[in-house]
Amino acid sequence: MKIDGKAYRTIWRAGPAAVETIDQTRLPHELAFRRLDSLEGVVEAIKTMVVRGAPLIGASAAYGLAIALSEAGDDASLAAAYAALNASRPTAVNLRHALDDVRAVVAPLPPPERGEAAFRRADEICEEDVKLNRAIGEAGFKLIEAAHKASGRPVHVLTHCNAGWLACVDWGTATAPIYLAHDRGVPVHVYVDETRPRNQGASLTAFELGQHGVPFTLIADNAGGHLMQHGKVDLCIVGADRVTARGDAANKIGTYLKALAARANGVPFYVAAPGTTIDWTLDDGHAIEIEERSAREVTHIWGRLADGRVAEVEIAPPGTRAANPAFDVTPAELVSGIITERGVSAASKPALAALYGRG
Amino acid sequence: MKIDGKAYRTIWRAGPAAVETIDQTRLPHELAFRRLDSLEGVVEAIKTMVVRGAPLIGASAAYGLAIALSEAGDDASLAAAYAALNASRPTAVNLRHALDDVRAVVAPLPPPERGEAAFRRADEICEEDVKLNRAIGEAGFKLIEAAHKASGRPVHVLTHCNAGWLACVDWGTATAPIYLAHDRGVPVHVYVDETRPRNQGASLTAFELGQHGVPFTLIADNAGGHLMQHGKVDLCIVGADRVTARGDAANKIGTYLKALAARANGVPFYVAAPGTTIDWTLDDGHAIEIEERSAREVTHIWGRLADGRVAEVEIAPPGTRAANPAFDVTPAELVSGIITERGVSAASKPALAALYGRG
Repeated sequence: MKIDGKAYRTIWRAGPAAVETIDQTRLPHELAFRRLDSLEGVVEAIKTMVVRGAPLIGASAAYGLAIALSEAGDDASLAAAYAALNASRPTAVNLRHALDDVRAVVAPLPPPERGEAAFRRADEICEEDVKLNRAIGEAGFKLIEAAHKASGRPVHVLTHCNAGWLACVDWGTATAPIYLAHDRGVPVHVYVDETRPRNQGASLTAFELGQHGVPFTLIADNAGGHLMQHGKVDLCIVGADRVTARGDAANKIGTYLKALAARANGVPFYVAAPGTTIDWTLDDGHAIEIEERSAREVTHIWGRLADGRVAEVEIAPPGTRAANPAFDVTPAELVSGIITERGVSAASKPALAALYGRG
Repeated sequence: MKIDGKAYRTIWRAGPAAVETIDQTRLPHELAFRRLDSLEGVVEAIKTMVVRGAPLIGASAAYGLAIALSEAGDDASLAAAYAALNASRPTAVNLRHALDDVRAVVAPLPPPERGEAAFRRADEICEEDVKLNRAIGEAGFKLIEAAHKASGRPVHVLTHCNAGWLACVDWGTATAPIYLAHDRGVPVHVYVDETRPRNQGASLTAFELGQHGVPFTLIADNAGGHLMQHGKVDLCIVGADRVTARGDAANKIGTYLKALAARANGVPFYVAAPGTTIDWTLDDGHAIEIEERSAREVTHIWGRLADGRVAEVEIAPPGTRAANPAFDVTPAELVSGIITERGVSAASKPALAALYGRG
């Protein structure tokens, strides 16, 4: 998608054994790039969230392995690089998948050929991610187009957190239908939940939509129910970290509240997620363990001071105890459909199983 | 209630023609007091939210009139002071009520006696507010006590925004039952919604509960639904800016989302509000006009820097457009009961009318 009028991906090749990324820790206050040309550099970029979002973490890790193998392709180096990258973030399943994928490709090769082969495979992983999200976009585009044809007005989409192209290689999941609609001239406007406590909506989704030229309005997470009561939202599209076999969806904390409001006010509520997000071993989303993150994310907020410097402010009395569950689970009964790369599925076990040939 | 172990009200007499207040613009970062001894000082304190909360604004305005009349008690001075105070905040109905009340008392008196009479009436207005909230506390206390008796465990109450003693003269509305329970040894713990965009939960409710010694946990507004799904909330108690004749409740934006989650998870949802909050002329809460406040409240946040200074940071890309509806309306069907000074009423027209003898 575009930044300052120029098309970008979140990660790209930059020389024979290096990649470049957007430093997402600086957004939305500064557009800075980070050249990654060592294993240590990639590990540090993942750890410090210079790159974030499960698909982008996976792509970055694949390149990290390629960079390491370009320097030394022997088995010991492969094992060490795999271990270092795999430990860089604890829970991202894409990270492990990407590492396993690249290792399987390079392991049978003679060490001197492994670096180049790993780079080729990492490139493919990126292309596959782009293709996947674009297919989600096509499926979701039809929903936005239909809403526009039905009303003749711009379509107002509410989204939560950042399931955008900055979390992927391009397009995003929840945002792909929005970008396609915008690029094809279907008028679309997005209500962006700021998404406390980490504010990924205010900092990342607002940045990427604004840079690509998609009209949006930032709102406090509290406002969505009121907007839906007053007919100002045509549909909700959110991402998901995990979807169960029956269609329960774990996503950023607060998603569930918007799903309740959507149901109460007759607003369709869609979860955009590729098939790789579906956990076929699990039916009941209540069983998903929810990460409890640092209280400091609730009591402190990062932002830009009037003089341009970025600083952290504390918003609560010193010593305040805070709880910070990072995700919640929206039960399938509140989900109008799952927008996948294979089309829109009902949020039900039979429908999802049929779509993915697991009947 | 207590601060640093000492009992406070939000406003008190400080000499023959002056009052003192807590400067709420400095909370929770600093406990500072403000002496108000001129009409201009009171008007400025209301305008700049040194004092805030409808009941406290009313009490402050009453004292403002008294201070003005102590200086000059003639009709022209009375009219000018009334006009200046009435214009200090646009929508607070208590402000107008308090001014009308004091004016009615002093108008028949000779000018030299008006100042002292106005102070006496302002004192009474404060005492009446304290009595009203304490009665709400007694009614709500029974709910907390019953929940504790039923479970044998501490009672977990979720509240939104600040309907606390800092908004009133003492006790608060939503907090009065909590303070009574705590003071009487019924174990109670409060989940405090931070209440974006103005963070009254994180700054004021967290401060007042913490200072009085009530255990609490601050949460992002997004977290309440998840907590209710997992049985961590026993009841919700919120305040209200206006309650319609049938029990629809206008309160701080985001209240409605918590009411939806409470209903979906079988958690009782109570609105604590005195009879003076009921608008008998209105049934359908959808007709309540919702104040749209500055976008800057969404895009910028105040807090304390590491060096102790208080500063504002911007959390969104420069120029971000934001919507900021300040209130939402929770329909009566989601309200388990209205906790009033006359007891707990069903949120229905017949029940409220019967309680207030308007059948």
